[in-house]
Amino acid sequence: MSQRPDTPHLDRVHLPSDLKQFSDAELHEVARELRAETISAVSETGGHLGAGLGVVELTVALHSVFDAPRDKIIWDVSHQCYPHKILTGRRERIRTIRQKDGLSGFTKRSESPYDPFGAAHSSTSISAALGFAVARDLGGASETGHGDAIAVIGDGAMSAGMAFEAMNNAGHLGKRLIVILNDNEMSIAPPTGALSSYLTRLYAEAPFQDLKAVAKGAMGFLPPPFQEGAKRAKEMLKGMAMGGTLFEELGFSYLGPVDGHDLDQLLPILRTVKSRATGPILIHALTKKGKGYSHAEHAPDKGHARAKFDVVTGEQKKAPSNAPGYTKVFAEALMQEAAEDSRICAITAAMPDGTGLDLFAERYPSRTFDVGIAEQHGVTFCAGLAAGGMRPFCAIYSTFLQRGYDQVVHDVAIQRLPVRFAIDRAGLVGADGATHAGSYDTAFLTNLPGFVVMAAADEAELKHMVRTAAAHDDGPIAFRYPRGEGVGVEMPERGQILEIGKGRVMKEGTRVALLSFGTRLAECLTASEALEARGVSVTVVDARFAKPLDEALILRLAREHEALLTVEEGAVGGFGSHVAQLLAENAVFDRGLKYRSMVLPDIFVDQASPRDMYAVAKLNAEDIEAKVLGTLGVDVLDKRA
Amino acid sequence: MSQRPDTPHLDRVHLPSDLKQFSDAELHEVARELRAETISAVSETGGHLGAGLGVVELTVALHSVFDAPRDKIIWDVSHQCYPHKILTGRRERIRTIRQKDGLSGFTKRSESPYDPFGAAHSSTSISAALGFAVARDLGGASETGHGDAIAVIGDGAMSAGMAFEAMNNAGHLGKRLIVILNDNEMSIAPPTGALSSYLTRLYAEAPFQDLKAVAKGAMGFLPPPFQEGAKRAKEMLKGMAMGGTLFEELGFSYLGPVDGHDLDQLLPILRTVKSRATGPILIHALTKKGKGYSHAEHAPDKGHARAKFDVVTGEQKKAPSNAPGYTKVFAEALMQEAAEDSRICAITAAMPDGTGLDLFAERYPSRTFDVGIAEQHGVTFCAGLAAGGMRPFCAIYSTFLQRGYDQVVHDVAIQRLPVRFAIDRAGLVGADGATHAGSYDTAFLTNLPGFVVMAAADEAELKHMVRTAAAHDDGPIAFRYPRGEGVGVEMPERGQILEIGKGRVMKEGTRVALLSFGTRLAECLTASEALEARGVSVTVVDARFAKPLDEALILRLAREHEALLTVEEGAVGGFGSHVAQLLAENAVFDRGLKYRSMVLPDIFVDQASPRDMYAVAKLNAEDIEAKVLGTLGVDVLDKRA
Repeated sequence: MSQRPDTPHLDRVHLPSDLKQFSDAELHEVARELRAETISAVSETGGHLGAGLGVVELTVALHSVFDAPRDKIIWDVSHQCYPHKILTGRRERIRTIRQKDGLSGFTKRSESPYDPFGAAHSSTSISAALGFAVARDLGGASETGHGDAIAVIGDGAMSAGMAFEAMNNAGHLGKRLIVILNDNEMSIAPPTGALSSYLTRLYAEAPFQDLKAVAKGAMGFLPPPFQEGAKRAKEMLKGMAMGGTLFEELGFSYLGPVDGHDLDQLLPILRTVKSRATGPILIHALTKKGKGYSHAEHAPDKGHARAKFDVVTGEQKKAPSNAPGYTKVFAEALMQEAAEDSRICAITAAMPDGTGLDLFAERYPSRTFDVGIAEQHGVTFCAGLAAGGMRPFCAIYSTFLQRGYDQVVHDVAIQRLPVRFAIDRAGLVGADGATHAGSYDTAFLTNLPGFVVMAAADEAELKHMVRTAAAHDDGPIAFRYPRGEGVGVEMPERGQILEIGKGRVMKEGTRVALLSFGTRLAECLTASEALEARGVSVTVVDARFAKPLDEALILRLAREHEALLTVEEGAVGGFGSHVAQLLAENAVFDRGLKYRSMVLPDIFVDQASPRDMYAVAKLNAEDIEAKVLGTLGVDVLDKRA
Repeated sequence: MSQRPDTPHLDRVHLPSDLKQFSDAELHEVARELRAETISAVSETGGHLGAGLGVVELTVALHSVFDAPRDKIIWDVSHQCYPHKILTGRRERIRTIRQKDGLSGFTKRSESPYDPFGAAHSSTSISAALGFAVARDLGGASETGHGDAIAVIGDGAMSAGMAFEAMNNAGHLGKRLIVILNDNEMSIAPPTGALSSYLTRLYAEAPFQDLKAVAKGAMGFLPPPFQEGAKRAKEMLKGMAMGGTLFEELGFSYLGPVDGHDLDQLLPILRTVKSRATGPILIHALTKKGKGYSHAEHAPDKGHARAKFDVVTGEQKKAPSNAPGYTKVFAEALMQEAAEDSRICAITAAMPDGTGLDLFAERYPSRTFDVGIAEQHGVTFCAGLAAGGMRPFCAIYSTFLQRGYDQVVHDVAIQRLPVRFAIDRAGLVGADGATHAGSYDTAFLTNLPGFVVMAAADEAELKHMVRTAAAHDDGPIAFRYPRGEGVGVEMPERGQILEIGKGRVMKEGTRVALLSFGTRLAECLTASEALEARGVSVTVVDARFAKPLDEALILRLAREHEALLTVEEGAVGGFGSHVAQLLAENAVFDRGLKYRSMVLPDIFVDQASPRDMYAVAKLNAEDIEAKVLGTLGVDVLDKRA
């Protein structure tokens, strides 16, 4: 454990109201100590570092000027909330963050009244803040009272359509609402898109160092009836900066850009806004992701997410792995196929690193498209590419593909366009918890006519599925795979084209059939060994396809076994439900079959290691074993009781 | 049948290439005749009228200047495509539009090579066009060749986040791409939102009548290397209009505003753009929805959608109905509850008429929110309202709720916020066809922890469910109901609060149990009578809840009957799948049960009357009867064979 920093001022802050005792000069000290505490905590726990370091001063300024929880401070994405958590009564637990039974790595309503709205996916904060603002003005009941609604949103998140929708609506409604654009020119990856270039132009001609005096001065001139909004603010601030025309066109008063690390700018601006604002206001703050910790500032991702690390050297304490990660296997397999086929291109929605497409982009820059945080557009863009004769691979995490669901239905499936969906982070994902779980993709894709839906049981299978998808031009095709490392199987030189809708029998038994879809296959095999040790003969099948189903194989399994169990890393409505529908339609249940479908449970599974999360979900080998024994009616003591 | 208009010029147009033979003066005649033909056709068939009339000149201009199908003209939403269909080889079939086996009311890839990308939901066109543009530049194979990519998008559709995402990406990529903003100040409802005000300001100071000469003049000045884009275009057009700053900030060259009904403006502008454009260009055309047909122009909805009508009087030939429509029942029930509870508020995404919230808005204007075409924002705005102590009813059609799916999961369900979802147009919807079918909501909501999911079996049930939802504060709750009229049951004075998770037994039998979720209940009752005439005793149950299930009731039905069939207006993964999971977990299948789940089939069901569509889906009374007989193994001749 690294030595804890010395934090005499921070030690006196138990709740945000304690900040009111400090002078502005002392608040500088609080910020300095808060930064040190954040670095120290994340060095022990791992987690999101850069984003939090970028908003240390903003967090101190907001909590010293506003009155949470009466004022609702809503952090977009909220991976930057560690300093906020430290200031809002959770300092003692900050070193449990992202761990089992610990603090969430994001804001969470159930965790604290200071988290009025949880997040984890991006670009929701303005919509939520507008909801609070309207509820306030309509007299909605709130246990913590109703004050200001404040959204803090990054420039990357601002580029998502949802944020634009919210700005458009907020500008129209004209309610008092504060949006702080935390512009660090960096979401997870370098930003792409015209909005980003626009933001850069906004401050390109307003040199950073000159702003401080101007900002202070300008504040003094703000007239009491500030409410005429855009027009007057625009005039006044004309000399101060370039002016935020785009935001003003949408009905917001624009203030900025301001140095988001300078409390001497932030405090007077926030105080003025608090005392005088009436309509929607956007404060444009420039910050640096990873600010104040050189190992983060100088990293390519600005310290976005970190394993535990040494505070002095910045070195991460990550255990080396033996098997290749699924993400990398996907990227390499796709590059291999792209070398043979110039129609293959790859699309990511602001996750080039997370999806492995950064590797692909190095080799095939002209065939790689980062559309920004824009899953809706991304999916339909792929549909257009496919209609135009390309073979697009749309690489989006399971949980984020939910953002493009209608486009999957309306633009891809109904038109039967051959878009390839590479669905990373399928199933439970570990420390990111429930908001990032990939629980629903199998269900929401398998009931779409014409879709092919695969899941990789191991990293070699993933390689086959990449090639299978590349070769499949008859409609959309998806393959899902989990976060983390593979199981260490031998890797083929190149993927093979799998026969669509055919499963593979891993071992033949006689009494029980385990029908797995995805990486629970290894757990099924382990369970089968334990069962065989008890004299229960088990067949294990890798379904490979949830759609189309291998009907002949499944009906044979049903015929030849006393019990049939499906196992998958997804919610009800997916693989198991389609198997049940097949069995029902074929009158299999009429004559009796011990059928069970093991799926993710009907709860949002809290963060823990994936293995622990699957224990909660009862989808590990011992759970499968117990389920089989229970199904067969074999009495057995629960080994874990 | 009304008299057909005289169309000597139009008669010579079989494909768009035929337009090349005409002088500009003759193209005016073509446009005039095309308008008359459109009015005449829709008077016979019913359908979307106003939107098509608004783009008659634009359609003629686009097809005479560009070269479809090599150039890809993509109509956003595409309910304005009737004139386009008339010009692209489908004139003889235009009077079959929206009918069974007739032309689709939207563009459809499978219908014509002149429909490069189908639509029906809004705001997809720029993404698709960008896909075509990129595919062209990457050398993608296209049977029709690769020319320009042109998106025609309305001002309402432009306000959706997805369109912004696409503009943001297109501005960044800088590919040659043409976006025509068809600004009629009117999507379906009067537009709301800051973008709409912005567009109004754009031309407020550029009087309409002055534009013609200026536009012509300006075109002459366009220099050959037009590609410097925003900057030069901005300078040149400064004198011409207000300038489209917002679009220019996003990287588009802005041309306009132009009179979208004046071919003398449209033709030179499109020709200039065609010959000289290199990067992304936005042409801002002002049009009038319903243009040229006074009965449409002067209607509040500008003739958005029409039943068959008399061309001269404009009178619609709609059969009067006996039972109240579900939409109206919802709106009136909600008003009744809102009178008792000031926390109730209502949110629509640009569909005040379609959802019935126009009625609610008249009585409770301050509690009604039209967020624009912005389902993502709308759902999270509701989550914010609920967190702020309000009782929001989020009224969105089933098919459009797909646009806000991630927000339902991430902002509502995970936070267990009591947002009430009023899901209109559940199930198959008739003439709008597959793109508007509400097939998936039960599946994509029932596997979300903490959600309550109801379906109304009739209009009285809907009234109960509105009140039940109003009273339910423990997490999210949804109720679905179909398009069209109710079944004519007696209506209660006020809805009752239903017990959560309890079904109701409609009739008790002994051999077969029909377990219905939704309005197939009437079909089940009809089927049960036919079955009883054959000596098969039938229990009929209205499940009311797909989640939580009435487990005790369902398990009793399974115990006491030889066969159990679920019936629902949704795809696999919904009600039936949850019932199957319950039965499996309770070992019901182990001892044999004739279980079947009747769901929407694994095809996109083409437009027809709802009854005909349900015949295709095999969910009408006779299908239920046949299914029961087949399940029981009773030999019976198919009456319809």
